[in-house]
Amino acid sequence: MARLVECIPNFSVSRERDPAVFQRLVDTANSVPGCTVLDVQSDGDHNRCVFTFVGSPEAAGEAAFRLTKVATEAIDMTRHQGQHPRMGATDVIPFVPTMDVTLKECVALSKQVAQRIWEELKVPSFLYEDSASSPERINLAKVRSGQFEGMPEKLKQPQWAPDYGERAIHPTAGITAIGARMPLIAYNINLDTTDLEVANQIARAIRAANGGFKYCKAIGVMLSDRGTAQVSMNMVNYEGTPLYYVFEMVRALADRYGARIVGSELVGLAPAKALLDCAEYYLKLENFDCRKQVMEYHLIGME
Amino acid sequence: MARLVECIPNFSVSRERDPAVFQRLVDTANSVPGCTVLDVQSDGDHNRCVFTFVGSPEAAGEAAFRLTKVATEAIDMTRHQGQHPRMGATDVIPFVPTMDVTLKECVALSKQVAQRIWEELKVPSFLYEDSASSPERINLAKVRSGQFEGMPEKLKQPQWAPDYGERAIHPTAGITAIGARMPLIAYNINLDTTDLEVANQIARAIRAANGGFKYCKAIGVMLSDRGTAQVSMNMVNYEGTPLYYVFEMVRALADRYGARIVGSELVGLAPAKALLDCAEYYLKLENFDCRKQVMEYHLIGME
Repeated sequence: MARLVECIPNFSVSRERDPAVFQRLVDTANSVPGCTVLDVQSDGDHNRCVFTFVGSPEAAGEAAFRLTKVATEAIDMTRHQGQHPRMGATDVIPFVPTMDVTLKECVALSKQVAQRIWEELKVPSFLYEDSASSPERINLAKVRSGQFEGMPEKLKQPQWAPDYGERAIHPTAGITAIGARMPLIAYNINLDTTDLEVANQIARAIRAANGGFKYCKAIGVMLSDRGTAQVSMNMVNYEGTPLYYVFEMVRALADRYGARIVGSELVGLAPAKALLDCAEYYLKLENFDCRKQVMEYHLIGME
Repeated sequence: MARLVECIPNFSVSRERDPAVFQRLVDTANSVPGCTVLDVQSDGDHNRCVFTFVGSPEAAGEAAFRLTKVATEAIDMTRHQGQHPRMGATDVIPFVPTMDVTLKECVALSKQVAQRIWEELKVPSFLYEDSASSPERINLAKVRSGQFEGMPEKLKQPQWAPDYGERAIHPTAGITAIGARMPLIAYNINLDTTDLEVANQIARAIRAANGGFKYCKAIGVMLSDRGTAQVSMNMVNYEGTPLYYVFEMVRALADRYGARIVGSELVGLAPAKALLDCAEYYLKLENFDCRKQVMEYHLIGME
């Protein structure tokens, strides 16, 4: 039985601008037993890199710590330049439940790692997303606003004491956002209308911000290639708001405008369960236990 | 990139009647590097056991051979008794494509293993299912009819020469059926009618035997607990005949009788793709590459 957590830490360094430090991070990520690196992205303009690895909660936490240690030693934020907002050498560490691990367990893991990073590396951190200690810390953009340069002042505000550490950044590594979240699914639904306003109206109706589905963010966009409108969504918790909720709601709302769904698309990766839940819904499956009945789950983590 | 084949060999021995030989098979199955045993079933009344293991084509072929060698040495079919039809110590060896392996490659693997079993163990074999050398050898029941005791006579018939070996069984190990096939999915659709004849009519309409879907076997059955009728199916190739084909066809046919689908059920295991294909259909997914976009595929075979 494989218990797996995905971790996607972001560091303020790039292969393009500092290949030696980047390589140290790569080597470190590959050095942790029980951890598998699935992807490494680097962007020179952003001067930032993103690791994606999977492992047991213990292995993922260990890898996140070791990478943060290297980043703390090797990256000097007082000299960092790049287009992407950032506040720390290790900018953000999200933990995502992947198999036989709950979101709650990932919250606990994020706190353990944040505490260790403070105790051993003296890098303070904010807990964000599902680990957040207050509502205004849920959103990463709000936590990070002010960026590295503005953090010393921000930390003096009563409501912005770090969750771990004192009211001061690490002089060269800044401060880190650490938290647990569900996997994010980028999901778009294509309409047969040339009227962007129809997609905008539907987006407003289904998104949490306007009273729609709790875990759905949505906007209307025009597809210039096709000349048709699209409802573009970020599904931030597919267990709370399944994909078929938005598909069926968009279908119903489009009908009001005389429009139809011509297709939908997943951008990037999605967990199997987000789609298996749709098959279960549309096939009206009874007593379906996907963890037991779907072959591939038995192949993950096999020796 | 993990290339995986599932193998489900059946042996004419049981834990209940001959624990020592059974244990030798278990130990042998677990001895092959790159092969993972997912399940072992034993039935004393049938005096038969079934292994399910997964590995690379090479590892799965090696494990199948090693198990056959043990069965050939340890099982004497002239003394075998059990309720299940059987013709060999190693009765049947199916290879099933599981990940990044085609059915065609499994056919080639089945022939390699059959040849090796003949050359090194002098056990003859029939190729069956998708490996069959003629239409009458596709069906295992037809290949096995006559069983161990009737095989010497059967092999003398012009059309029943073994695919590997001479026209004589191995004196104690008999003869084996070896072949490749797609995974079988047991899938049932429950109706809201108390009329079994409605389910029978629908079953006849959708099954290959009567001109329906090529890879669908179906019968109508009465669910005594519920008092309602069910269309009970074996889907023998979910790529050729997807689950949503039969779901939508049963829905349309039931409507003719004023009946409705109240639910469906998967019995036992199914490959993820059989259900992902349904999600793709109902969500009208465009440009969906499940092998790349479904997270869990990247976790299979990771170190």
